[in-house]
Amino acid sequence: MRLLFLGDMVGRSGRTAVYERLPRLIADHHIDFAIVNGENAAGGFGVTETILTDTLDAGADVMTTGNHVWDQREALVFAERQERFLRPANYPDGTPGRGMGVFEARNGARVMVSNLMGRVFMSPDLDDPFVAAERQLDGGRLGRDFDCVVFDFHAEATSEKVCFAHFVDGRASLVVGTHTHTPTADHTIFDGGTGYISDVGMCGDYGHSLGMEKEEPLNRFLTKVPRGRFEAATGPATLCGVAVEISDRTGLCERIAPIRIGPRLEETMPSWW
Amino acid sequence: MRLLFLGDMVGRSGRTAVYERLPRLIADHHIDFAIVNGENAAGGFGVTETILTDTLDAGADVMTTGNHVWDQREALVFAERQERFLRPANYPDGTPGRGMGVFEARNGARVMVSNLMGRVFMSPDLDDPFVAAERQLDGGRLGRDFDCVVFDFHAEATSEKVCFAHFVDGRASLVVGTHTHTPTADHTIFDGGTGYISDVGMCGDYGHSLGMEKEEPLNRFLTKVPRGRFEAATGPATLCGVAVEISDRTGLCERIAPIRIGPRLEETMPSWW
Amino acid sequence: MRLLFLGDMVGRSGRTAVYERLPRLIADHHIDFAIVNGENAAGGFGVTETILTDTLDAGADVMTTGNHVWDQREALVFAERQERFLRPANYPDGTPGRGMGVFEARNGARVMVSNLMGRVFMSPDLDDPFVAAERQLDGGRLGRDFDCVVFDFHAEATSEKVCFAHFVDGRASLVVGTHTHTPTADHTIFDGGTGYISDVGMCGDYGHSLGMEKEEPLNRFLTKVPRGRFEAATGPATLCGVAVEISDRTGLCERIAPIRIGPRLEETMPSWW
Amino acid sequence: MRLLFLGDMVGRSGRTAVYERLPRLIADHHIDFAIVNGENAAGGFGVTETILTDTLDAGADVMTTGNHVWDQREALVFAERQERFLRPANYPDGTPGRGMGVFEARNGARVMVSNLMGRVFMSPDLDDPFVAAERQLDGGRLGRDFDCVVFDFHAEATSEKVCFAHFVDGRASLVVGTHTHTPTADHTIFDGGTGYISDVGMCGDYGHSLGMEKEEPLNRFLTKVPRGRFEAATGPATLCGVAVEISDRTGLCERIAPIRIGPRLEETMPSWW
Ligand SMILES: [Fe+2]
Ligand SMILES: [Fe+2]
Ligand SMILES: [Fe+2]
Ligand SMILES: [Fe+2]
Ligand SMILES: [Fe+2]
Ligand SMILES: [Fe+2]
Ligand SMILES: [Fe+2]
Ligand SMILES: [Fe+2]
Repeated sequence: MRLLFLGDMVGRSGRTAVYERLPRLIADHHIDFAIVNGENAAGGFGVTETILTDTLDAGADVMTTGNHVWDQREALVFAERQERFLRPANYPDGTPGRGMGVFEARNGARVMVSNLMGRVFMSPDLDDPFVAAERQLDGGRLGRDFDCVVFDFHAEATSEKVCFAHFVDGRASLVVGTHTHTPTADHTIFDGGTGYISDVGMCGDYGHSLGMEKEEPLNRFLTKVPRGRFEAATGPATLCGVAVEISDRTGLCERIAPIRIGPRLEETMPSWW
Repeated sequence: MRLLFLGDMVGRSGRTAVYERLPRLIADHHIDFAIVNGENAAGGFGVTETILTDTLDAGADVMTTGNHVWDQREALVFAERQERFLRPANYPDGTPGRGMGVFEARNGARVMVSNLMGRVFMSPDLDDPFVAAERQLDGGRLGRDFDCVVFDFHAEATSEKVCFAHFVDGRASLVVGTHTHTPTADHTIFDGGTGYISDVGMCGDYGHSLGMEKEEPLNRFLTKVPRGRFEAATGPATLCGVAVEISDRTGLCERIAPIRIGPRLEETMPSWW
Repeated sequence: MRLLFLGDMVGRSGRTAVYERLPRLIADHHIDFAIVNGENAAGGFGVTETILTDTLDAGADVMTTGNHVWDQREALVFAERQERFLRPANYPDGTPGRGMGVFEARNGARVMVSNLMGRVFMSPDLDDPFVAAERQLDGGRLGRDFDCVVFDFHAEATSEKVCFAHFVDGRASLVVGTHTHTPTADHTIFDGGTGYISDVGMCGDYGHSLGMEKEEPLNRFLTKVPRGRFEAATGPATLCGVAVEISDRTGLCERIAPIRIGPRLEETMPSWW
Repeated sequence: MRLLFLGDMVGRSGRTAVYERLPRLIADHHIDFAIVNGENAAGGFGVTETILTDTLDAGADVMTTGNHVWDQREALVFAERQERFLRPANYPDGTPGRGMGVFEARNGARVMVSNLMGRVFMSPDLDDPFVAAERQLDGGRLGRDFDCVVFDFHAEATSEKVCFAHFVDGRASLVVGTHTHTPTADHTIFDGGTGYISDVGMCGDYGHSLGMEKEEPLNRFLTKVPRGRFEAATGPATLCGVAVEISDRTGLCERIAPIRIGPRLEETMPSWW
């Protein structure tokens, strides 16, 4: 089966790019399952239910998130009823919403998607993502209970990301890093058969600072005196993600390639699409 | 002019790859100036004078470093006499060695190279890298005093890296991020003409964790009980870096492309080489 | 001479305690110079010009601050014209206001007061406080140019605080730690003659969490989902500070004792007052 | 009942003070139960089995620890067989040793002791200490199953410490903070009846930096170039701890007072001893 994962949509610019291009990508390239990380979709901070619905309407099967998940407080409510909306699974017990789900792909495959958050440099107060993943994997096995297992590992440190991928190597189809808003070029298939990329990057305006207008972030580095808020940049977005081909037999990754469409970055599409 | 920058050499595996391939790359592709980050060259931790000399013999014009610069304590001594060896410039006054230098390229160009270290998630106790860069740029201007200005910005956080690049945009030929050991795919030329990539990645074994054997890093994530030391992985290295074409007239970046040679990662070479 | 330093005033509760008690303390105990840290005076976040004026009217000679200094944005303006208002001196060049000043005490003594901020666990993006202090001390010598030198070292880590005090030992009359809002019991006079306490604590309501209502801080530890803002606690404050006796001849510290007046904590006053 | 808790023993200086004074304190003041934190007992780093045995011989009923627990690798072995040795309970499942225990006091009381570690500024990769405590408290109730419940909360941030104490207020006899090596003066009894102090301080030489020779820590702040190892200071130690009187009926705290014996700090003993 063929899966597409798009990184953090940032603001209106990112949303526009996803809404406009995702339906066509899915149709033209026979994508069986599409995941979009939406944690920065609402002006850079969180996601509204309207945005979630629009993203699903554009063809996404699941929206994952990360540390910004609750920035729009309505998410605390709709996370409960929207089954295709995931927040990091390693938030404490009692957190609204869910951190993983099993979904049916367009080809009938059973796809388990898990959203986890790293702790290094980031969120010391979360539960252990390795333990959380172990527990999730205890609940069902790739190639038997699931046809595809995807982890969105939302984290800052490359060491934590790559160690996590080794940890689930052979037990997951794909580990996708998100959060840094910077696409990496280390997509690979590990020895056990798990596809991996440290970060897929964002769907946003690459002419500024991680999708946000660069003036204020730069100002803070220079003066340490906040002058205003962080605001999403408004230039045209580049869509960044990763495409994988997953074995219908084993659920493991057979092919992985980045996808980048838009200005500023070097465009690329899977050669095998 | 044509410049090549190679990311953090890790251990014997990284050194072997650099020593074997760099001479040929320089000769075949008419590289005018080559920089190699060597902070992890000695078993993952620091660099010895022999390694420095061997790297220069292989064709490097300058070796930059980062937070691991003093891991081999002999560096505190040879940093003083080795003019082609740079440590981060924003260490405090009185630190041995130098953080920048001006060198003559094979084509006669005057190349200023500066090594800086970020502070976010990393080294709260360093001087401000933005202030340090400003001071360095006060000492001479690109296109007038220098034909090429390169910053190796050794840092963890993508926000700090990209904001730094915007800060010197138009005043530097190239800002290269190092330290995460993970190549990014966001190489670009900013509006002011400065080439940029968030991280060039490492020259090391990509089958483990950032060039180090994966067992111990993974063990620490899982058990929090150190079982041994971190050791450089011994599989074949992938050479990772970036190549740029710099205007002889303005000193600004005209072309930028990643270079990746070796197993595990998707290989790539500049299309214009 | 006799000096009194009061820790971070938190909210209305802290202000009320200071306004009501400081005049009497100064009069009854012949305080020659009084310093109050005001960074949390306005509802826990920053300080307004009215609060500054009221604090000076209550008898404070100088107000120091810390990381919350700019929370009330009017401080960016009045910091320029209010000479008795200090923000951390190791903010970058160009920051509004000043980080040190020389003031005349009621006994005619020339008192240098410096406000610095630590970096460990806190503010990686500040200038080196050790270097900043060295520069300040270069500008004048205790016992010759100044009759008293006081550092408010606003920091989280005890290691940084105590090392700083050793660094200026013999060159300052007093190093007072602030920021943790928790009074320490390690007041001492170092071998060189500098008085020291790791933290004087706050002037605030000790029945909650560092002077703020405990519900929201506790909620965040438990659920990781913000439910509301942090608000200053409204119970009666305990005044916390330190009193020192400084040699008129050498400017060094002859006596140091904590002062704690109010509910919740064990009250104490200098035995030699 | 009467309980004594002594803070982190540092090196030979700290050990000597404890071995010499603890037996006498217990005898003279009819201490029913004594706990000593030993994480820095072996030259500042960890604890050997000999040190553990000697400390128990001196009268300690339990030794707690913290982040330095495994610095001496033999602890990984003896932690399994030594029931009176505790390591932080919120290490991951499978960690050697235990994080809590129930012990019989000299007066026959059943004393539950738990050792936890904070995460803020410290150990992002530990399990949630609030959840761990909740689970421990589920196992038995103060005043019914236990006559006394003590938490050694080993942490850096005062906010985490005080919020934890509010969290267990009424369910524990005592929450003692350790790790900063700096005694605080905020000992109090919360509204629910739990005794609290943010940090008891260390048993070590207060003339240096947290019990370690000050030269190297200071050197690192000044030069960022390590010159040597951290070594325990050798001057005479000050014994720092806290004494509490616990209700035989409710198990709650009736009295709390610091104890400090030795040079450098102001000495103090419970007035009610
Ligand atoms: Fe994001
Ligand atoms: Fe994020
Ligand atoms: Fe490196
Ligand atoms: Fe590095
Ligand atoms: Fe404060
Ligand atoms: Fe503060
Ligand atoms: Fe300790
Ligand atoms: Fe500790």
